[in-house]
Amino acid sequence: MTSHTEYLWFETAKQEEFVRITDEVEAIVARSGVTDGMVLVSAMHITAAVYVNDWESGLIADIKDWLNHLAPKANYRHHQTGEDNGEAHLKNLIMHHQVILPITEGQLDLGPWQQVFYAEFDGQRRKRVVVKVMGISELG
Amino acid sequence: MTSHTEYLWFETAKQEEFVRITDEVEAIVARSGVTDGMVLVSAMHITAAVYVNDWESGLIADIKDWLNHLAPKANYRHHQTGEDNGEAHLKNLIMHHQVILPITEGQLDLGPWQQVFYAEFDGQRRKRVVVKVMGISELG
Amino acid sequence: MTSHTEYLWFETAKQEEFVRITDEVEAIVARSGVTDGMVLVSAMHITAAVYVNDWESGLIADIKDWLNHLAPKANYRHHQTGEDNGEAHLKNLIMHHQVILPITEGQLDLGPWQQVFYAEFDGQRRKRVVVKVMGISELG
Repeated sequence: MTSHTEYLWFETAKQEEFVRITDEVEAIVARSGVTDGMVLVSAMHITAAVYVNDWESGLIADIKDWLNHLAPKANYRHHQTGEDNGEAHLKNLIMHHQVILPITEGQLDLGPWQQVFYAEFDGQRRKRVVVKVMGISELG
Repeated sequence: MTSHTEYLWFETAKQEEFVRITDEVEAIVARSGVTDGMVLVSAMHITAAVYVNDWESGLIADIKDWLNHLAPKANYRHHQTGEDNGEAHLKNLIMHHQVILPITEGQLDLGPWQQVFYAEFDGQRRKRVVVKVMGISELG
Repeated sequence: MTSHTEYLWFETAKQEEFVRITDEVEAIVARSGVTDGMVLVSAMHITAAVYVNDWESGLIADIKDWLNHLAPKANYRHHQTGEDNGEAHLKNLIMHHQVILPITEGQLDLGPWQQVFYAEFDGQRRKRVVVKVMGISELG
């Protein structure tokens, strides 16, 4: 079994920003040499998410509006610590912070419309995603 | 390490339909020969989910009502592309599109009430779930 | 490849209670001998969740309030079976019942604020979480 780990770094210009990372994850899978297995793509922060859905700007705007509705800015207890990002924590929980992508014949085994996104809810600072590939490599 | 991949196909009669797939996943695990490991069960579409919960028709109806409340039909920006399924994308995001089930002694290592479901939010067409088993097999 | 499985048991004093389990999971990883791989931490019940977020009591109270808002106590169809915990099932679905944590150099590869929690929504009885470690061990 082979295991291969890399990290993706982000520093978004806006506080909230969704970044497509399918190609970056595919490149890491290629470098791993794994031809059959799984890759974990997991935000290392608690105010960001990793999700799979459509690469369509209208839908991405819809998702942002919908999250603002389900997890609005408010006077959260968490803000008594000096933080002001309570809603970003709740958005992380709705969207989940990680996905596992199957790898088959050396490729991400995704459906035709599936794209991987990093969803930043409290950006403008350096944040990280861990990408860990595990599986069978050609070299055994 | 052994890896084994199969696909489940669905074409639901209704636009929204939840299908229990525990037995199908168990049969794939049995065919894989894996006695200890994990199985990824992941929708390959962005308007469907895979989840684990109760096999009880009242609760399943409750979940559908609740999702309609949290992600209602509406005039989403996404519909400007000609689509009309914005709410199905949002339901996919709430419910998550995948689960990983542990395999212990050759069986799905689930609690007494845990059943695996495919939740279709935009059906009446052929859609797919990837099932990938990874782990230790008796044959090494 | 090494695989190692343990179970964590809970019997919370209150019906709803969130329990930090990072240290327990780390101890299981250490016992597994796995130095590089993944650990699945998955509730075996359908009215409990496992999630990763902040170890801050204000935020934990915010999460509980927010879940009560999104999945309120109500007269669910599920209650016709004699149960009274419909909302606990819905909270399980929002929060997701499992996480996969990466293991790098023998440690949980988490960000600085990431802590693992067991979220009980229908407690005061014995319930279980399965923890399965898979990966490469020093002993091969």
